[in-house]
Amino acid sequence: MPTISKKGQLMPQSPIRKLVPYAEDAIKRGKSIYHLNIGQPDIKTPQVALDAVKNNTIETLSYSRSQGSDEYREKLATYYKKHQINITLEDIIVTVGASEALQFLFSSIMDPGDEVIIPEPFYANYTAFSTASGVNVVPAICDIDDNFALPTIEAFEALITPNTKAILICNPGNPTGYLYSEEEIKKLAKIAIKHDLYLVADEVYREFVYDGATHYSILQEENISQNAVIIDSVSKRYSMCGARVGCLISKNKALMQTVLKFAQARLSPPTYAQLASEAALETPQSYFDDVIEEYVERRNTLITELQKIENIKVAIPKGAFYCIVELPVKNTDHFAQWLLEDFDIDGETVMVAPAAGFYSTPGVGLNQIRIAYVLKKDSLIKAVNILKQALKAYKD
Amino acid sequence: MPTISKKGQLMPQSPIRKLVPYAEDAIKRGKSIYHLNIGQPDIKTPQVALDAVKNNTIETLSYSRSQGSDEYREKLATYYKKHQINITLEDIIVTVGASEALQFLFSSIMDPGDEVIIPEPFYANYTAFSTASGVNVVPAICDIDDNFALPTIEAFEALITPNTKAILICNPGNPTGYLYSEEEIKKLAKIAIKHDLYLVADEVYREFVYDGATHYSILQEENISQNAVIIDSVSKRYSMCGARVGCLISKNKALMQTVLKFAQARLSPPTYAQLASEAALETPQSYFDDVIEEYVERRNTLITELQKIENIKVAIPKGAFYCIVELPVKNTDHFAQWLLEDFDIDGETVMVAPAAGFYSTPGVGLNQIRIAYVLKKDSLIKAVNILKQALKAYKD
Ligand SMILES: Cc1ncc(COP(=O)(O)O)c(C=O)c1O
Ligand SMILES: Cc1ncc(COP(=O)(O)O)c(C=O)c1O
Repeated sequence: MPTISKKGQLMPQSPIRKLVPYAEDAIKRGKSIYHLNIGQPDIKTPQVALDAVKNNTIETLSYSRSQGSDEYREKLATYYKKHQINITLEDIIVTVGASEALQFLFSSIMDPGDEVIIPEPFYANYTAFSTASGVNVVPAICDIDDNFALPTIEAFEALITPNTKAILICNPGNPTGYLYSEEEIKKLAKIAIKHDLYLVADEVYREFVYDGATHYSILQEENISQNAVIIDSVSKRYSMCGARVGCLISKNKALMQTVLKFAQARLSPPTYAQLASEAALETPQSYFDDVIEEYVERRNTLITELQKIENIKVAIPKGAFYCIVELPVKNTDHFAQWLLEDFDIDGETVMVAPAAGFYSTPGVGLNQIRIAYVLKKDSLIKAVNILKQALKAYKD
Repeated sequence: MPTISKKGQLMPQSPIRKLVPYAEDAIKRGKSIYHLNIGQPDIKTPQVALDAVKNNTIETLSYSRSQGSDEYREKLATYYKKHQINITLEDIIVTVGASEALQFLFSSIMDPGDEVIIPEPFYANYTAFSTASGVNVVPAICDIDDNFALPTIEAFEALITPNTKAILICNPGNPTGYLYSEEEIKKLAKIAIKHDLYLVADEVYREFVYDGATHYSILQEENISQNAVIIDSVSKRYSMCGARVGCLISKNKALMQTVLKFAQARLSPPTYAQLASEAALETPQSYFDDVIEEYVERRNTLITELQKIENIKVAIPKGAFYCIVELPVKNTDHFAQWLLEDFDIDGETVMVAPAAGFYSTPGVGLNQIRIAYVLKKDSLIKAVNILKQALKAYKD
């Protein structure tokens, strides 16, 4: 038999996927499940984007340019300018989701054995992309008791080695909902410049910022223009996860030329989805106002309900649509599986994401879960009540 | 300044892309160009696929399953059965074009330093995907005087080392138009089994087979089911290059589980394009008959016209829509650039792909070009005439 590669064997399974067979089984046995486990919003895609695809006049569905169409990148640049991110179309390469942008970036700046520092807990697929390119993740551990704020400069610098090539943050954060302050961004910028590192910000949740806070992008820091890379996506912003359109942004020409070579090798991003993404830029502000209002209400509902449960800790999210919850259990991998296999209230149960998968440090986060508040208010109330009853019934 | 990775520096530029700036410049100076250089067919996409997208009723454009939707994979399996490839939906993972399927495969079966044997000349991006995963391409050199037939078994086996993990063929071939015989496939299957190698066939041009020949797929060889991997795509078959939908097919469960982990890390293939691809499976046979007729006519025209030029060699293609032509010049890189910069007939010139980029062996193929016959008959006649006049005018 031919063999599997070492990196193929090392590739992690997502913490969410591991539970899928148990969920499928539960559904087969007639249970219904509140999905608090995934980042797939139930929000409608803007009509203007849907219409652009329905009314398309394509007759030959051709490759687009590898870096994305000029029209789309031009309009994107205008969008970013509105967000105080001063770029032109040349600073943008359109990718197949933020996922591909991350892969291109890892390949362009890191070789096997290199290191990337990531505040932990972090989006689980960062580990997957690191493994795929043989890169080591060095976690900068953040604490639920600090609401997952950034560690001190000293703690950060202690992690830097000659192999360190980049610092990667997610702002606002998945899975923490943490929003970095302007001060924290400036702090990171300083470290990046001092040590010649890339400062990469995954800003796919840029629009999802609550309580009157504003998002401060790394590209608002003019002095780090050669170090800064933004990873972005239409997936969450316009509830267009299935489009598979994202982008990589940088003013560093050498980097962009390298990323372009990877982009050219895979030929082109998807053409229909680019049409939708270009049109989505015309989405009226009222759409976002409604969506943000909805998420704030969901978050508030979720937090209020969670706080009724004894012996749990919640990190209150300031952005995105996730939060980390510490439960009075030893191992949430087991608890989450038990919820699907052995628990229900009137045939209903909940699916949560065990948080250990968002930590690269072994043994950390075992008593935490991530909740995505992508369900309607009523469902959230029911789901948290199920969680509450479950915690009473559950024996470690 | 932060640095670029070694592999980023090593990533090749496609042999076609290198000429693009010269073409853009020529266009600016008012020249028109016959594009014989790219694999983007001018053929219309089947109406049934276009309509499926126009009439879609999606309201929230969600992620699809990482392996592709069950409906699509189910129907795909039926398509393959019609082509004597006996598989079920579980043997299929839907990818973002054949490009992504190749990347997943390289990552799943090879680590840095491993080797893949590829009959040469080959699709240039195989080099890019190899470089991206640190894999070495070992070319099995094929000769234009043999019409690019496979080397002998002995020649093949002489290339195998302990690091060899796979043999990769393209059938029918880009850039050669070569179609492997059943006998050749059986020969490769024997080598693959004997040495525990994967036998990978890029069959994206499966339908483009001429002169009454039939395509013999590696998966028709039952005894290599654990070694065989098919790479496929809707790009050329339905003239849907911009869809970005392909697939990887194998009956090797360990391999498929590994590929799935890479697929899950990037979440999902594009949703609109999957709709189009699923509908495309309903394309009537008459569409293919017309397309094949058109390509045969184009090929015949191209060959007839080329044979009027003195001192050139043409490998007559039996499939796909490319052919390799040997020219009486020293360096086609220079000749192709000269065509764009310094030559025209009544303001018209041609763009061709210098063939050196399809060889990994340095110095080989320098006097060859690849022609893609993706233009209408009249344009092909004019384009070849320009080539003829150009060869008279050109001084090495
Ligand atoms: C933080 C973060 N980055 C990137 C992605 C990938 O997004 P895309 O759909 O654009 O590939 C996700 C998706 O959940 C995410 O949460
Ligand atoms: C031989 C071969 N394989 C793969 C591809 C990539 O195709 P896709 O558009 O499916 O990524 C091409 C495109 O030209 C090709 O010629």
